[in-house]
Amino acid sequence: MRKKGLLIVISGPSGAGKGTICKRLLESNANIKASVSATTRGPRVGEVEGKNYFFLSKEAFEEMLEQDAFLEYAKVYDNYYGTPKKYVIENLDSGNDVLLEIDIAGALQIKEKFKEGVFVFILPPSMEELKKRIVGRGTESEADIIKRYGAAMEEINQVIQYDYAVINDNLDRALEDVEAILKAEGCRVNRVYQDIQSRF
Amino acid sequence: MRKKGLLIVISGPSGAGKGTICKRLLESNANIKASVSATTRGPRVGEVEGKNYFFLSKEAFEEMLEQDAFLEYAKVYDNYYGTPKKYVIENLDSGNDVLLEIDIAGALQIKEKFKEGVFVFILPPSMEELKKRIVGRGTESEADIIKRYGAAMEEINQVIQYDYAVINDNLDRALEDVEAILKAEGCRVNRVYQDIQSRF
Repeated sequence: MRKKGLLIVISGPSGAGKGTICKRLLESNANIKASVSATTRGPRVGEVEGKNYFFLSKEAFEEMLEQDAFLEYAKVYDNYYGTPKKYVIENLDSGNDVLLEIDIAGALQIKEKFKEGVFVFILPPSMEELKKRIVGRGTESEADIIKRYGAAMEEINQVIQYDYAVINDNLDRALEDVEAILKAEGCRVNRVYQDIQSRF
Repeated sequence: MRKKGLLIVISGPSGAGKGTICKRLLESNANIKASVSATTRGPRVGEVEGKNYFFLSKEAFEEMLEQDAFLEYAKVYDNYYGTPKKYVIENLDSGNDVLLEIDIAGALQIKEKFKEGVFVFILPPSMEELKKRIVGRGTESEADIIKRYGAAMEEINQVIQYDYAVINDNLDRALEDVEAILKAEGCRVNRVYQDIQSRF
């Protein structure tokens, strides 16, 4: 019914499983495209231009910043990272949905510039489960675990800034929720009003 | 995740197929209850108190009106019809969803009093199909058909007052849309925020 795609912005604390949900979404929905970020850091072995990142010089990135060509950006140490508007808009206009897995700061920047986006926050089912998942990675020191856990709890407080919250207690069920959110958003009157007017 | 049920308000012009969609929704979702209206007209043969209607005297209905005990009401000729708040609220509080198939005037009254409701408008796929469905009933005169068609077109202009529009070009697909809307609304942050706060 709607002609334009949806921009789906997914955030959540580490341990919520948002990476797996995004991967599964992309695998099972051919019309959902992953957003591709731009960065000024050099490509690592195996990284492909236009797939993993758009690799830009610092000058090119700053010029795009001046032209307001990013939906959001951040500077991490000496490198810029950002979401180029062009790639997103082109996909939406051609009817594809665009999926953006991003931290809360980035999501809030996007909300400012593109409030038609669908903002989804993925949560672990409980504090205990969150702790278990962080510890379960087995790659971090106790100090890192405590730090990561604290950061996750702080992030969870930001859920109120999002449109939807999906509790990932079961991957299949959480995925169903996200897919239902996309289907429902595709029926929002403000998104389909033009199409209805053209039909009647 | 959410504890409280959803009030689902479904409207649409005659010929959109909302009755069939509501029937199917109730059949396949045990947790969705049909709202029961109150009326001052007498019961017809086979109508059951508390199932088809709550049958009330005019005095009782007017007393409830004074107590603001209806989500919406209308007077049709000499009889009152209304949606008692109590039945709806009790079901929502116990975690059931409540489905209300109602005309636009009624839906707009409910939106005033109960804006947490989910307002869904069912549409036929096109003007041609609308006409075909109205004619297809075969029970009406040409004048009635024209009248009904004009009324339907006027109603369709009101879609902008609703949250969601579902085009009923295919019953199964339309039903999937409505079910997705309910699932998505159950993930709305404002509906689940309390639950999240209690988990973390």
